[in-house]
Parts: sequence; structure tokens; C-alpha cells
Amino acid sequence: MEGTSVFMIDQTLLPFTFSIYEAKTWNDCCTAIHSMITRGAGAIGATAGFAMAQAFAEAADKDDDMIILMAKEKIESTRPTARNLFYAVERVFKAGKISALAAIEVAQKMADENIHEAKLIGQFGNELIKNGYRIMTHCNAGWLGFVDYGSALSPIYTANNEGKKVFIYVDETRPRSQGAKLTAWELYHEGIDHAIIPDNAVAYYMSKGKVDLMITGADRIAANGDTANKIGTFEKAILAKEFGVPFYIAAPLSTFDMDCTSGKDIIIEERHEDEVLFQTGIDLNGQRVKINVANPGSGALNPAFDVTPAKYINGIITEKGIIPANPESIKKLVQKNSNPNSQYKRN
Amino acid sequence: MEGTSVFMIDQTLLPFTFSIYEAKTWNDCCTAIHSMITRGAGAIGATAGFAMAQAFAEAADKDDDMIILMAKEKIESTRPTARNLFYAVERVFKAGKISALAAIEVAQKMADENIHEAKLIGQFGNELIKNGYRIMTHCNAGWLGFVDYGSALSPIYTANNEGKKVFIYVDETRPRSQGAKLTAWELYHEGIDHAIIPDNAVAYYMSKGKVDLMITGADRIAANGDTANKIGTFEKAILAKEFGVPFYIAAPLSTFDMDCTSGKDIIIEERHEDEVLFQTGIDLNGQRVKINVANPGSGALNPAFDVTPAKYINGIITEKGIIPANPESIKKLVQKNSNPNSQYKRN
Repeated sequence: MEGTSVFMIDQTLLPFTFSIYEAKTWNDCCTAIHSMITRGAGAIGATAGFAMAQAFAEAADKDDDMIILMAKEKIESTRPTARNLFYAVERVFKAGKISALAAIEVAQKMADENIHEAKLIGQFGNELIKNGYRIMTHCNAGWLGFVDYGSALSPIYTANNEGKKVFIYVDETRPRSQGAKLTAWELYHEGIDHAIIPDNAVAYYMSKGKVDLMITGADRIAANGDTANKIGTFEKAILAKEFGVPFYIAAPLSTFDMDCTSGKDIIIEERHEDEVLFQTGIDLNGQRVKINVANPGSGALNPAFDVTPAKYINGIITEKGIIPANPESIKKLVQKNSNPNSQYKRN
Repeated sequence: MEGTSVFMIDQTLLPFTFSIYEAKTWNDCCTAIHSMITRGAGAIGATAGFAMAQAFAEAADKDDDMIILMAKEKIESTRPTARNLFYAVERVFKAGKISALAAIEVAQKMADENIHEAKLIGQFGNELIKNGYRIMTHCNAGWLGFVDYGSALSPIYTANNEGKKVFIYVDETRPRSQGAKLTAWELYHEGIDHAIIPDNAVAYYMSKGKVDLMITGADRIAANGDTANKIGTFEKAILAKEFGVPFYIAAPLSTFDMDCTSGKDIIIEERHEDEVLFQTGIDLNGQRVKINVANPGSGALNPAFDVTPAKYINGIITEKGIIPANPESIKKLVQKNSNPNSQYKRN
């Protein structure tokens, strides 16, 4: 945030164009989250926090408190599955009761925390990675999806910085291809060996013993360890279990939702069928084009997330260490790191 | 085949343009198979048989027998995983030793057989389908992939013709999207309820109990029941087993390869990475466009098939009935229906 604007990488234009989107108002932030100009658990959380802060500033400016509640409701409706969004909005909402300035400070503090947490996730996750490891990931939980570093990719960056040689299988992650478009872009610019594979080729490579570890991010983790993440995560986790590939989730504590006792309580966002029926890319002249890639007349179903039951998860990499995906470990971790007076404010 | 030309639907232009490709020579047929103008186990087999016949005709014309062996080698190199291709080439090759006319007759006979077999597969497979069933399929094993009817879709067409209400989950089948482009096109024109889903959403729908049956085709079935089919089939089969969804393969006897004792002997075709990195479709003006849908600079891996071990397969729907996917049942079926003097000629 600079002045009253929030600045973010426009992820809908990547990997073909690098451009910064300026959200001048909380409403611009809502558009950015909903249209996925910004995306990824951490980045959504940070943007939502700043949006809430912008609303307090606007309310103070216009002397109209209604704006605050209106904004809160709208921000919370942009991406219903993302835990970090609700977490951030609540924290800033609480701070805003003191002053608009306090709201902005808390939003900025959360963005800074996000960087710090992601870095720690990288350090803990790095312990799982041996030299020569071939690691698979799904979707994008890199520094694009956070304020920096990322969750699932952060351990890979730490390992790479330490000189470990790694190779990353980047699955395409249809329908929006965040793997092929965003994770591949990040890894390419970090100089890390990787190959894009169709989502359909996961069992093929795992069955040949070519995958040593799988790490994905998370959008919401229930109290029992069930984890909502990008559609397809659930099936990769089942395949990992089938072939004995360790499967880890990487996420900061703000992704845990102790009000969800299990994955059954997590609302899954259904997105527009056009995301499946159309694809965007650049043509041979470098022009950005949207094309129909399915039978005209056929409809599509587009659930954005699925829930991986805890039994398929070998562990969760957090900024406080790696814990097993079970209710006891999660409860212990969250309680130890939360202020007993508020589920939204940490020490 | 009409005159000396082989005519086929150009499947690379579907679902946007319906156009017939004329293969004037065996070399044109090779191009058609390799570039996937024609595709699908049965259609590849029929085209390969006609190509072999065209080669005999050309050899007779030019009085140059070298053409025959050259053609045989080239046809067999177009799609290494497709069992029906080798089966058809061998049968026509044998007939051609009598005369070019005999070669053409056998190629035509095989195409007719293909229609008949596919129709029978539909009748046997139909017994698995109850009214109201929600069926999932992968890739395209419909009438586009055969001379008519198809294998995996044939039971669905029979059920629909009998008035059973069915709903089909059509997975996209990246990277070439034969599900979204071809199966959806077939079902749309047959007036059968369906929805395209991303390949990533299979576990999501299966876990919710929304899939009653899964049927796919096959490119090659080993003597022990291990089945090579479009990349992704293996993982759908694992998911089907995980969620108790009956998983069936539909294929004519010509798809069985008794020389392959298990799936380990099946050669998997690796195709060009551009099939993953680029997508073809039509833009908003209806123009056919190829676009880059991945990070420029990143490479891709593109195995065209995978092998589903027999233990994940509930049964194989053939033109002789449904059999379990085990060595004894397969041996019995193949022996009963083959001429003991030749593995390539049936009674």
C-alpha cells in the first residue's frame, strides 16, 4: 500500500506481460480478488486486509460508517473458500474500531507477517528436501500467491538457495493453468529445473518412482486437518498415497479455521463455466487472445476447490514447524500461538 | 475407401469445423494418423489397414514391391502404442500377398467388422447401465474413434436409444482435450445430457457419490489385462477404486495383444511438448487460432498414454461379452475367437 492505493502484480496477464495493478479503492481490491488479478491464499489475505483498511479510510473521509459494513460484506463475498481473506478482514475490522490509521497499520503488519511466515515455512519445509529430489506441486503457492516467498514453493526456494539440486514437476492445473502459467514462470525466473506436465500425467510419473515429494498450498484447513485447496489437490493426494509419495501441505497458521470441525463445513466456490470452456494465451504474433477450446453448446462444471481429507496428508508445514494433520496437533499449535482473548489476534 | 482414396473426418478441426480429409496415398494416411487428423483405436486401425492396402495397389501399379515394406514400416511407426494399428497392418499385409485387390477387400472387411464389434460392445455394455446413471468417461472412444458407434460411448448410445436417462461427465482430457472437443461434440449431437469437467475434478465428483460408472476405451490390452489408454486413465481408475465406482474398459478383441504378457511390455508414445504448451481453438470472431498457454521458456513432458494395471479394472466390455481383467479369462476369450493358424486372422 502506497498512499491510499494498493499495488499488486496483475496475475491474469502473466506469464506473458508483467504489469502492476493499482487498486485505488476497496472496491477495486474486490474486483482484483474476484477476477483473480490477485490470487493465492496469502496474496488474497493481504489484499483483503488492505481493502478493509481502505474502507475505513474512505468512511472517515466521507464521515459515513455504512461504508465499512458494506465493504466488509463485499470483500468477504469475493472468494468464499479462502480462509486468509476472512482472517485478514476480521483483524483489520477490529483495528479499525480504534481508527482508520490503526486499520492501515494492522493491514501492513499482516502483509509483513505474511512474508516472515512464508520464509519460515521455507526453512522448515527445506528439511524434507534432499539433494536431487524430484518434487511435484499443484497450482501456484509461490511468491505470487503470497506477499513474498510463498508456501508450497518456499521450501523449494530455500533448498535451491542452499545449493540442493531439485527438479520440479509443475502440473498444468486446469482450468486456469496456474501451474503452467504462474508456477512455471516463477521457477523459470528463479532458475530452477522444472517441466510442465498435464494434470493427467501425475499417476504416470509417480508410478515410475520419479516423484520423491509432493507439496501444495492450502486455502483453508479445518480443525481436523482436512484441507481445502485448488481443485485437483484431492486426487493428487490420493495418488501420492497410492504410490507412497510423501504429501505435504504448506500454509501459515492464518489458514487454519478452528470453527470448521472438518472439511464438510468448508464452502466450495463454484466458478463460471467459461473458465473451462475458454482459454487465454498469446497467439503467434504475441497478441493476447481468448479462445473457445470445447464443443460450442456443451456446458461445463467448475468447482474451484476440493477438500483433501487429513488421512492423505503426511504433514502440514507451518511457520512454527511441521505438524501431523490431526486434531490434537492442530489444536495444540493454534492454542500455543493465539491470544486467548481473540481468535483473530496473535501475540 | 472410395476409388484409391481413404476418406475420414478431420478430427483436428472438430468441434468447430466438420470437414472430410481425403488421403490419396498411404503416405497421406500416415500423416493423418501421426498428426491425429484421425485418432481413436478403431479409427487408427481402419485407416492403417486401408493405408496398407493403398501401398499394395501402388506397388502393383508401379511394379515395385519395395513400396510395400517401406509403407508397412512407416505406417507402424505412426502411433506405436495403438494395438489395432499393428493388427490391421498385419492382416492386410497377409492378404496382400495374394493380390492388391485382396488387400483392399480385407481392409474394407475389417472396417465393417469394426462397426459390428462396436455395436455389440454397446449391447453388452448397456447391461451395466441403469436408468438415471451418471457415467464418467475419459478421452474419446466414441464413433469418431471408430468406424462407427465407438467403444466406451457405444453402451451409452445403446442405453440412450433404449430410453434410459443418463448423464455423462466428460473430462477435458488434456493436453489434446479430446473429451471437451470430441466426446462433448458427439454427445451434444446425440442429444445426451453431459457436462465438461476439468481433469482435476474427477475425485471431487466421485467423492460426492455423483458417479455411478466409469467407462473408457483402450489402445492396447496386455495378456494379463493391463490396459494402455490415453494419459490420465490410470489415475481415474485409481480414483474409481478409491471411491467404489465400477471402472470398465470397452474394446474389441483386436485391441488385445497376447504378445504383451503385462503392461510393462507396452511402449508408451511420447508426443511433442507443444501439445501441452499450446492450445488450439476459435477466437471470438470464429477464427481458428493456436495460442501459447504456458510460461514461454518452460518445457513440458507429454506422455500420450499410461497403463492401468488389471487390478483397477472391474471388467472389459468386448464384442463377445464382458470379461474380468485377468489372464485366464482373456486367454480363454482370445483362443475361442481366433484361428489357431494365425494370431491375426479370425474365423
